[in-house]
Formats: sequence, structure tokens, C-alpha cells
Amino acid sequence: MTVTNPASNNAQPASPVQLTEEEIFGAHEGGKLSIQPTTSLADAKALSIAYTPGVAQVSRAIHGDETLAKRYTWTERLVVVVSDGTAVLGLGDIGPRASLPVMEGKSALFKTFGGLDSIPLVLDTTDVDEIIETLVRLRPSYGAVNLEDISAPRCFELEAKLIEALDCPVMHDDQHGTAIVALAALKGAVAVQKRELEPLRVVISGAGAAGVACAKILLAAGVRDLILLDSKGIIHKGRAGLNPVKEEMAEVTNPNGLHGGLDVALKGADVFIGVSAGTVPEDIVATMAPDAIVFALSNPDPEIHPDVAAKHVGIVATGRSDFPNQINNVLAFPGVFRGALDAGARRITEAMKLAAADAIFGVVKDELSVNRIVPSPLDPRVAPEVAAAVARAARQDGVA
Amino acid sequence: MTVTNPASNNAQPASPVQLTEEEIFGAHEGGKLSIQPTTSLADAKALSIAYTPGVAQVSRAIHGDETLAKRYTWTERLVVVVSDGTAVLGLGDIGPRASLPVMEGKSALFKTFGGLDSIPLVLDTTDVDEIIETLVRLRPSYGAVNLEDISAPRCFELEAKLIEALDCPVMHDDQHGTAIVALAALKGAVAVQKRELEPLRVVISGAGAAGVACAKILLAAGVRDLILLDSKGIIHKGRAGLNPVKEEMAEVTNPNGLHGGLDVALKGADVFIGVSAGTVPEDIVATMAPDAIVFALSNPDPEIHPDVAAKHVGIVATGRSDFPNQINNVLAFPGVFRGALDAGARRITEAMKLAAADAIFGVVKDELSVNRIVPSPLDPRVAPEVAAAVARAARQDGVA
Repeated sequence: MTVTNPASNNAQPASPVQLTEEEIFGAHEGGKLSIQPTTSLADAKALSIAYTPGVAQVSRAIHGDETLAKRYTWTERLVVVVSDGTAVLGLGDIGPRASLPVMEGKSALFKTFGGLDSIPLVLDTTDVDEIIETLVRLRPSYGAVNLEDISAPRCFELEAKLIEALDCPVMHDDQHGTAIVALAALKGAVAVQKRELEPLRVVISGAGAAGVACAKILLAAGVRDLILLDSKGIIHKGRAGLNPVKEEMAEVTNPNGLHGGLDVALKGADVFIGVSAGTVPEDIVATMAPDAIVFALSNPDPEIHPDVAAKHVGIVATGRSDFPNQINNVLAFPGVFRGALDAGARRITEAMKLAAADAIFGVVKDELSVNRIVPSPLDPRVAPEVAAAVARAARQDGVA
Repeated sequence: MTVTNPASNNAQPASPVQLTEEEIFGAHEGGKLSIQPTTSLADAKALSIAYTPGVAQVSRAIHGDETLAKRYTWTERLVVVVSDGTAVLGLGDIGPRASLPVMEGKSALFKTFGGLDSIPLVLDTTDVDEIIETLVRLRPSYGAVNLEDISAPRCFELEAKLIEALDCPVMHDDQHGTAIVALAALKGAVAVQKRELEPLRVVISGAGAAGVACAKILLAAGVRDLILLDSKGIIHKGRAGLNPVKEEMAEVTNPNGLHGGLDVALKGADVFIGVSAGTVPEDIVATMAPDAIVFALSNPDPEIHPDVAAKHVGIVATGRSDFPNQINNVLAFPGVFRGALDAGARRITEAMKLAAADAIFGVVKDELSVNRIVPSPLDPRVAPEVAAAVARAARQDGVA
């Protein structure tokens, strides 16, 4: 079977990705991670240094001053990628074992782009308190926690409680990685159009991990008119059956008290951010304001095909590598964690996330065009810039 | 400060190990482990294979058949080195953070000698049930568990319960790694002396993790007259205050019902195995039988200096790299776990441990001498031989 990009019969994609099953499974044979000793153990002296008797000196020193663990173990640059496998890619609740290839890929990305070591820890429990308890017990083993592919609304409770329980950086990437890059891309888009962020009417479709985090970061960045929709339509004050997170969002979004569906929300809107698995009909996109901005981030099938959206709006972005303007978390998480760990930050603050978005935008701000509102995910300039900005923000915020 | 081998002013050591603090701490800067992706992520196509969208194919396949996780993730060759830091080297209960350099070293040894990937998981709990619960929750993340530096008698209960709770190889190396290599060395020693194992009178000083495991494997290998001592002296039936493990040992050891101390035990004994932090006076060693065998395994200070012991006995071994006959766990654990994982074994059986000891002995059986009863810890022939023998035993035992 060939996994064919569904857009491959379309003219726009630069180079449609054609992957054979052999290529994919071949590259996964035996997994994607390997441990390498950083120091030789090849001769008796090396062994005496790295193991007994030499290592006893180091253990004794850490026993005397536990802060030395940061210096003499790998934990200070070790991110654990933690998942229970409940919301994996577009596949949903496929469990921890099936999620592991994604987590190994994530760990590989941490190394490739952030120079950080990372190991996947997938859990055979979906109980929030058990996940927290497990990570608290393992605390001496790592430096930071990247939560991954954990379903909403549990992911909100888990992240909040875990931040309180641990004295190290914790971030649910599906929330904040997406939100940081979406904000960076929106900054890029409005800069191309010589507009400002604050007066935009923004519509976010999807009130799960990514949608809620996008809404929060955009509000923090100055957006005032923001509408959030879930599968039942616009979230508004007083809507029955909202979970606590959506109730909270109802308080701070939808200032005009709109009720209804996507058709009501998008009419005259400046920005659409799709982070659901849904679709958006062309005729509704056509009702958006002039020069509208559409981020159709559902993967692998965007909410609306970028070529179709482009007929009606000014700027289009997707999550896909075969279209321009790819909004990919890898622009954020390696640098965010690298910066937080470099600074010795105890947590990841809102200011650090905003600084990350600014840094991503900063990399392309002199190269902007309609088809280049964010850097390429492979751009090697991004992670170091993000790391530096995040570390600076951590120190300014007093968490480092 | 210079960490000088206390034997360095003695003629016998081949090359006394002189380590400076700079060498030791320099080699530990930033820790001793690093993650490497096994597959490139350097271009868009590689990223599409190893991460989205390609990885989704692999996750979907594992979701359909969870046994495929063995093939398409690193777990099948991943050993977690688990410690609570309660019995680290000769340092004792120094806690998980201070134990981490030792565990990193252990993981590095797994890679160097066994070709296995390994990560340290150090735990901020010493509660046996909490440790088990944590590892059960993490089960989808790894392929095998090496317990390390966990204090007795908790280590016995922990290992036994963990073996029941998990469907994968579990071994407490301080027990069985030491026991396997001690048995291999004893086989080498008696072969040099053209004697048999069964009629030997064996005395083991130390009834902690290593002592109990040495006793058990020697009994399994055919030794009939074996005496075990703890800090209060010879363990015998009816001695007050024995913990359950020592009570069990009292039933199967000390057939002549001896009471008293090391002086009573060693008089006329053929073999002394020291796995305590104690010392053995020269005049007591002098009372052993002719051609006695002494394994003074306490580290870094053997129970009796090998040169002193050699004046009275036929063969001497220690745990140290600067004397002949080094009894080092690294001869066992990389091959044991490699063999168990290669075979897909669900557990590590007694037969697999005996097979490992035989394999270690087999490597040197044509090269034996008084100063060469075991292979060098750096001998590259050992781990593959051990792995093959252990895998074979696993299949014969029906656990693979």
C-alpha cells in the first residue's frame, strides 16, 4: 500500500510526499532511539572512572550537595515525553503501546532540533492522579516533562496539577506548542498584511487541547474578539453542559454573545484557526472579511483544502509539509524546553510562551511573504533563537 | 585530592589505578548518557517518515496488533536500571539523586558490553509496593528491569513481587549478577585445582543481597555444605531475630548446625566468599583447609588483602580491577539481559542464571590458571557467549 498525499493530484504542492509502507516500516524497525555513552568504557582506566571505584566520588559529592546532580548527571538536559496514548495524532485513544512510535519520534526531534536528550515514558494508566504520582516518584530521573497526546479535558487538569506537583518545566505540547506556533504565524500573517493583532476577529474551531491553548495565548497577546467553537457550536456563557474549562473560556471569549454554528461565527471574521477534525464548507469561508487569514491545522486533512480557501482569503496556513506556511509544533517545543532547562527554570510561564512565539516570528520577520509567514520546521535558526528568548523570559519572570 | 589505590605501594598489582578528582568529575560533567535518533530527521521526507504523517501507519499497526510494539519500538532492547538509592556501592543509603551516576554507568555498560539500550529510573520512594506500582504503570515503556543498589531485605520482596507483577525479565543485579560471576569463578578455581564443586565446604560472609543469592546459586549448582554469616555470626536454625529470608536460608544451609563466628565457620573450610563490608583477620584465614579458595569481594576494600590471603590459601579473587581474578558483575548482566531479550523470555529462571555462569566459565576454561579463574571484565567474548547460553536456557525452560 502506498500512503499517498491526497493533494498529490493538485497543482499547488511543491513536492507531494509519497511514502511507501516499506519506507515507513523499515525506518521503524527496532525503534528510533538509541543510547550512547558519552564517555568511553573501553579500557580498565575508563571503566574505573565512569564506574567503580571512580563513580563513588561523584555519588558522594551529590549526596553532600544534591544540586550537583544537575551538573554531573544527564537529568539537566533530559526531557521525558509522557503519554497515556489517549489522543494520538488523528488516531484517538489507541493506548500507550501504539503511541510509542510517536513518542520516540518526539524524543528524536528533541535531540535533532534542541540538542536535548529525551526518553518516552508511556503509561498504562489514564488516571490523572496516578500519572502525577508516577512522575513525582520518578522526579530524580529527569529534568523536564513534555506531556503528549493526552485527551481533553483530562489534559488540562493533568497539566495544572503536575505543574503544582513538580519543581521543573512541564508543558503539554498539544496545547502550548501548537498555540505558540499559531501565534507566531498570526504575527507573521498580520505583518505581511501590515495590520495589527488586537482588532482582529478570531474564530477557533475546536475546544480541545490545542483550541483552548490557542485561545488563551491569543488573548494574552492582545486579541479581544475571539470566538471558540466545539462540536456543538459557539461556546457562550450559559450554554448547558460545558465542562469547567469551556465554562472558563465562555467567560473570556465571545464578547458579542454570539450563538450558533460556524456559519454565524465566521461571517465577517478576520481569522479562522481550525484545530478540530472537522471540515469547513467553502461557502462559509467565503463570508469572512476581506484579506482573511485561514489556519486549517487539522492533520492530515485540513478543515478546508488550502487551494479552495485561497480563492476567498488572503493567507492560508496548514499543518502539512507539502504546502507553504506549515504550522508545526517542532518550531516551538525543542527551543522552549532547551531555553527553560538552560535557564534552570522551575516552570514554563505565559511570558516564556509569548517570548517563544516572538522569537519564531523574529526569525522570518525580514523574509515575510504571503507564502512565508513562519519559518520552515527544518530551519536551524529557530530553536536557538527560541531557547535564548525563553531563557531570558524565565529570568525576567523570576522562575530561573 | 588524588584517589589512590590503597594497594599501590604493593608489588603485586599489575597497574595500580591512579585517578585524579579532575579526571573523575570531568568525565561526569553533563552525565554519561546521550540519546541518538537511529533514523535521520534531517529533511522533510525523513521527518514525514519518522514523524507525521508516516508514524501514524506504525501506530495504527501496533494498535491492531500490540505484539508489533516489540518490532517497531526500542522497548524490545530497552533495559530500565531501577534504583531507590538505598544501598549504593559501599556508600549505603545515599538516595536516588546521588545514586544516578552509578545507574548511568550501569546503563553505559549495558550498551558497551551487551549492545542493549538502557535508561536509569531512580525513584523518590523506598516503598516496595510503590516501586512495583510505578514499574507496572510504565510497563509499555521498556523491555526488562535491572534492579540495582536496593537494600536488603527489601530487595528480596521487591524482586519476588515484581517478577510476579511483570511479564518480562526482572533481575536484581546485586544479587544475581554477583552470584553468577562468583559461581563462574568458583568453577574456574576448582577446575584449576582439579577438584569438584560438590564436596567443598563453602563459607559466605554477608547475608544481604549478594550473600543470599550466592548461597542459593551455589546450592543449585550442587554445593552441599554451605555456611552463611551475617553481622551476628553464623546463621543457624532457631537463631532469634532472623528475617524471613535468613530463616529460609537457615533451613537449607549449615548442615552441621554450627554456631559462632567467622573463626568457627572458616576452620577447615575450602572456600570463603566475602560479600560484606567486614574484614577477615589473617590468623583465621590461616585455619582454612589446604588449597583453600578466597573471594574477598568487598569493594573498594577487600575483606582481606589479596597478598595476605595468598600466603595461606591456593587461589584469591577480589572485586578489584588492579588484582588478578576480578569478580565483576559486568561479566554477567549485559549477556544475561541480552540473551533474555533476544529469546523474548518472560522471566529469568534459575537455569538461565546457571547457564550464564557456565558460559562465563566456558570462555576461559582452556586458559585457566591460578591468576585466571575468570575472564577479564573487558573480554569481548563473554557477553555474546552468555547471551547465547541464556537464550538457549530460556527456550529449554519454556519461558521464551
